[in-house]
Amino acid sequence: MGYITSSQKPMFVSLTGPVVTTSMSEFDKSNIRKSSSFHVFVPVVCASCVSFRNMAPGPGFSDEKNETLCESESTVYVHNPHLDGMKDDILYHFNLGTSTHNLPAMFGDVKFVCVGGSPWRMKSFIEYIAGELSLEDPKAEYPNICAGTDRYAMYKIGPVLSVSHGMGIPSIAIMLHELIKLLYHARCTDVTIFRIGTSGGLGLEPGTVVVTKQSVDATFLPRLEQVILGNTVVRSTDLDQGLAEELLQCSKDLGQFETVIGNTMCTMDFYEGQARLDGAFCSYTEKDKQDYLTKAYESGVRNIEMESSVFAAMCKLSALKAAVVCVTLLDRQKGDQLISSHEVLHSYQQRPQILVGHLIKKMLQTSASVAVLDKKTVLQAPTT
Amino acid sequence: MGYITSSQKPMFVSLTGPVVTTSMSEFDKSNIRKSSSFHVFVPVVCASCVSFRNMAPGPGFSDEKNETLCESESTVYVHNPHLDGMKDDILYHFNLGTSTHNLPAMFGDVKFVCVGGSPWRMKSFIEYIAGELSLEDPKAEYPNICAGTDRYAMYKIGPVLSVSHGMGIPSIAIMLHELIKLLYHARCTDVTIFRIGTSGGLGLEPGTVVVTKQSVDATFLPRLEQVILGNTVVRSTDLDQGLAEELLQCSKDLGQFETVIGNTMCTMDFYEGQARLDGAFCSYTEKDKQDYLTKAYESGVRNIEMESSVFAAMCKLSALKAAVVCVTLLDRQKGDQLISSHEVLHSYQQRPQILVGHLIKKMLQTSASVAVLDKKTVLQAPTT
Repeated sequence: MGYITSSQKPMFVSLTGPVVTTSMSEFDKSNIRKSSSFHVFVPVVCASCVSFRNMAPGPGFSDEKNETLCESESTVYVHNPHLDGMKDDILYHFNLGTSTHNLPAMFGDVKFVCVGGSPWRMKSFIEYIAGELSLEDPKAEYPNICAGTDRYAMYKIGPVLSVSHGMGIPSIAIMLHELIKLLYHARCTDVTIFRIGTSGGLGLEPGTVVVTKQSVDATFLPRLEQVILGNTVVRSTDLDQGLAEELLQCSKDLGQFETVIGNTMCTMDFYEGQARLDGAFCSYTEKDKQDYLTKAYESGVRNIEMESSVFAAMCKLSALKAAVVCVTLLDRQKGDQLISSHEVLHSYQQRPQILVGHLIKKMLQTSASVAVLDKKTVLQAPTT
Repeated sequence: MGYITSSQKPMFVSLTGPVVTTSMSEFDKSNIRKSSSFHVFVPVVCASCVSFRNMAPGPGFSDEKNETLCESESTVYVHNPHLDGMKDDILYHFNLGTSTHNLPAMFGDVKFVCVGGSPWRMKSFIEYIAGELSLEDPKAEYPNICAGTDRYAMYKIGPVLSVSHGMGIPSIAIMLHELIKLLYHARCTDVTIFRIGTSGGLGLEPGTVVVTKQSVDATFLPRLEQVILGNTVVRSTDLDQGLAEELLQCSKDLGQFETVIGNTMCTMDFYEGQARLDGAFCSYTEKDKQDYLTKAYESGVRNIEMESSVFAAMCKLSALKAAVVCVTLLDRQKGDQLISSHEVLHSYQQRPQILVGHLIKKMLQTSASVAVLDKKTVLQAPTT
């Protein structure tokens, strides 16, 4: 099963998705050559590619409605053989669990998940998408499904789930572990996930939306380093290029604001980690800052935020089709502080949700058309 | 001024506090020998030890009330020469700023800051401490000072400030950058800061409170690695040992629950990063987990959480007297999931606030006694 054991010789293994990679790819080799900051490489082979179709239903409630799946349907993967042996699974930071909630009934119809840092923004998104999909009820409140905790907020309307994730890689990683298990326990299929957020831009007019091509680290490499059992492993941060192109097309259809596809730098810190001059600590000059940001721009970076790398890595491992859509609130080569008015910043923050909302609507319309066509084909088929 | 420049040869420099350290200490050397995961070491010399007494007042409102300070008073340090040149300073994630708020008037009397992950817990703390200090008004609401944003929540009563910080190192780091600048702009002196939180325990009965001796990383070393301008720097995670001992004494005085002093492991991830078997991904065995946790225990680790290292490092750089006080919700060598009842977990979570509340009360009583004594001395002094 490829577990880490202390007796095994260190070697580099990249987890590139549900398909196990045990050899060093050209991509990995080039990273090692370029990087001066690699740690110990350990064998991490995730062979337990567990999908709902290949195993018994998850612990807790049983629900049969999704059991007959079309071969073309794509399930949400977990990679953890230990989950099978668990009687219950408590999703602690959501205040949900398999023995206390009927997750297939609550979430089995989810096809789109939208995540973002702020709880308010994710409530605003569900209100917006309800209107876009003509699912809104003017008298209805959208209850926070995670009301028993203040770690995250979660809202749902029809096939769309909206979840907050706080700030930074660790915060979004906790949420994603529990979200992926939730989708798995709920037996969801064909799920597309978006991160909508704010960012600092490079060489772009404030208000420009960046759809991420690759999420790169602070040395401009497309990778995520994680420490597991004290050893550093490296994961790929690839995102779905087709989905990024579809989002760019949506922006052209809408014609409301500028959208570009570019690399997104994901950092561990907002101040020193992003070369800001306005933190409590700063031991570099304006020129050092500008040199660093210029190098970032030259490598293809168009915006900077704090969650995209682990979002990309975890979605890829789970076979979730994923995109990162962030608006730039300022041009970091021109400043550090957010001096635009509250109204202007608020209007910028609407843009990722408008773009993602448009694509969700388009995708649902397409699948509805396909369903109608399928129905017609069945009705018109000759009887034997 | 010791800035990072690309022309300088890489060397190791430890930022150990407001005093600049440019040579490699024995502590640093021993870390290098033990560590297999050090990156590039770059010169980061923070010579801009900026205190309110040594410079002009910060940008924004002017308030003279604190200008005459006793020599014994200790100021909050920022280490950033660029702040001098800023007309305003917007503390974006607090929705506060030097041109929009009179920070000295709002916060100048703060002597204690208590931070924790959950906004609810930090509101609960301010209600609790108001009662302990007999400052409560049964009719009063404690307004969230950061009400214009949902990134963090902040409450104040008398000399005590309570601030939430979300989950993980990046989230608490953003908050601390802005908190340190807030205390600096407000000209606070003699500030003591506590992080109260929850954690997984090692070899302890659930409900035991751990006061952190040293915050260590996932390889059990007392250090924080940060990437600045693409280079990795290492910072010390030392905490105030005297304050830790005072908290232990408070626990003995109270006699309500077990408290120990031990090392705290600070990780970047809650699931794989803490050797849990119940995440969406897990590629190691139960034995691998137990071996890792045993090594952690043998190195002195008694609990595991996700914020202490950057809290310790930033407080040390700012000359804030700091302690980390976390309750253990479970023994990680016996399980991963939080299966205790909501009531039991809730009662455990009260313990750090009871302990810190007791110490704040004690310290305020002591300083009040000293003030009375000082007054008597002045009154009894012979006239010339």
